Amino acid sequence: MFTTSFTPGILNRNRTAASNTKGLIMGTRPLIEAIEAGREIDKILLQKGLSGKTFQELQPLIQENAIPFQYVPLEKLNRITRKNHQGVIAFTAAVAYQNLGEIIAQTFEKGEDPLIVILDRVTDVRNFGAICRTAECAGAHAVVIPSRGSAPLNYDALKTSAGALQHLPVCRENNLKNTIKFLQDSGLKVYAASEKASEVLYRSDLKGPLALIMGSEENGVSPEYLRLCDGQIKLPINGKISSLNVSVATGAILYEIVRQRSTI
Amino acid sequence: MFTTSFTPGILNRNRTAASNTKGLIMGTRPLIEAIEAGREIDKILLQKGLSGKTFQELQPLIQENAIPFQYVPLEKLNRITRKNHQGVIAFTAAVAYQNLGEIIAQTFEKGEDPLIVILDRVTDVRNFGAICRTAECAGAHAVVIPSRGSAPLNYDALKTSAGALQHLPVCRENNLKNTIKFLQDSGLKVYAASEKASEVLYRSDLKGPLALIMGSEENGVSPEYLRLCDGQIKLPINGKISSLNVSVATGAILYEIVRQRSTI
Repeated sequence: MFTTSFTPGILNRNRTAASNTKGLIMGTRPLIEAIEAGREIDKILLQKGLSGKTFQELQPLIQENAIPFQYVPLEKLNRITRKNHQGVIAFTAAVAYQNLGEIIAQTFEKGEDPLIVILDRVTDVRNFGAICRTAECAGAHAVVIPSRGSAPLNYDALKTSAGALQHLPVCRENNLKNTIKFLQDSGLKVYAASEKASEVLYRSDLKGPLALIMGSEENGVSPEYLRLCDGQIKLPINGKISSLNVSVATGAILYEIVRQRSTI
Repeated sequence: MFTTSFTPGILNRNRTAASNTKGLIMGTRPLIEAIEAGREIDKILLQKGLSGKTFQELQPLIQENAIPFQYVPLEKLNRITRKNHQGVIAFTAAVAYQNLGEIIAQTFEKGEDPLIVILDRVTDVRNFGAICRTAECAGAHAVVIPSRGSAPLNYDALKTSAGALQHLPVCRENNLKNTIKFLQDSGLKVYAASEKASEVLYRSDLKGPLALIMGSEENGVSPEYLRLCDGQIKLPINGKISSLNVSVATGAILYEIVRQRSTI
């Protein structure tokens, strides 16, 4: 019934010759070509002190496309690949990111109440994949992650999601504060899971258009987002250990939302 | 809030000199001593064709204590350790198994409704550990596993459980059919999770003394156990992929049980 298997299917087929099988793009020129071809880039690592003409061509492209990047020592790049990377390594996304505004609009147009899962710095790829799998099963319309400090949308995530990431849109947003406000302006209630919540979720009204923020494995949801939320909810803890795995907690909360929305 | 960290604590301290740090016992004589000292053994691997005087001493001990064992080729034993194993390798349990009958009796004595989770061939150690973590948080009184075909109660399981296995009793039963009947005779309703169930769990009455059977990642709950159950339940699947991870599904079902039992 509850399988751990992965059904292969349609991945991002928009590949350039520059990429290898592991979703890496190496070198300045191949990366420029990939970005210009519309390839989804998850993150770029640049060697500290990198310069040169083609690099000056790459820089504005990174900024225009708001691609997360980081300057790192040469040794770090060499640990990732032994191939000739020329100081530039990019990780491609396994599936294309989608536009949150369009998803919200389309969901309302279909007469459905949007259900959005926002992940605030969930960094473990297996947790990220497992959450996407559960979100898809529960009928969520999208998962939102921040541009920085999130697990990558890579092939490991796709595998752990059991293929769910081929169906469930993932949106990457630069500023989650703006995202929360945008969702509220669009008519969604935004709830955050927090162990400090005064309400157990069974007493909260989770029907209607809704976004659920789940926090990092370490610190939970950021205080700046908690302040913006319409409410905080928690799962009751009846045992001695005080924490649930974030993917299990997301599952339990999403299925309470499904229950409340269900007409059966 | 939802951590992935592991809090170290009291493990099974009843160690013999024969065991190494990874929980292995090697050699016939050290294993005999360990069993006689009451050490919990998870499983024994014996070299095919093994004989000799000390082995004849070991055999009845294995049977008396109903320890799972398997005859394997010498090469398999050599792959596990390069040390001198003399044809005998035993895996010790990270925590001691407990008696289900005693747990049921004690729970009723405390005036509580027993909540038991039975795992029918859940073989993935991470899923097993994650389920134990969730079961402990949800206030379950024990997890039951079969003697054969289950993930081992080893140090990896303990780690994935985030320490929950130090608080939550695990019972190992030779025959789950007998266990189901025993629980029913003790006044528990036994429900199985099955995608073929006609009822979504929200319509089932999950209050009162209860056992929940979760099935293997591959095939779900065995038909022979489904026939014995008082009911089958399923989580609604609203997406395109048809399966939840077993640890997430267990979490969502346990928290629905918690909700129904909650007086808040």
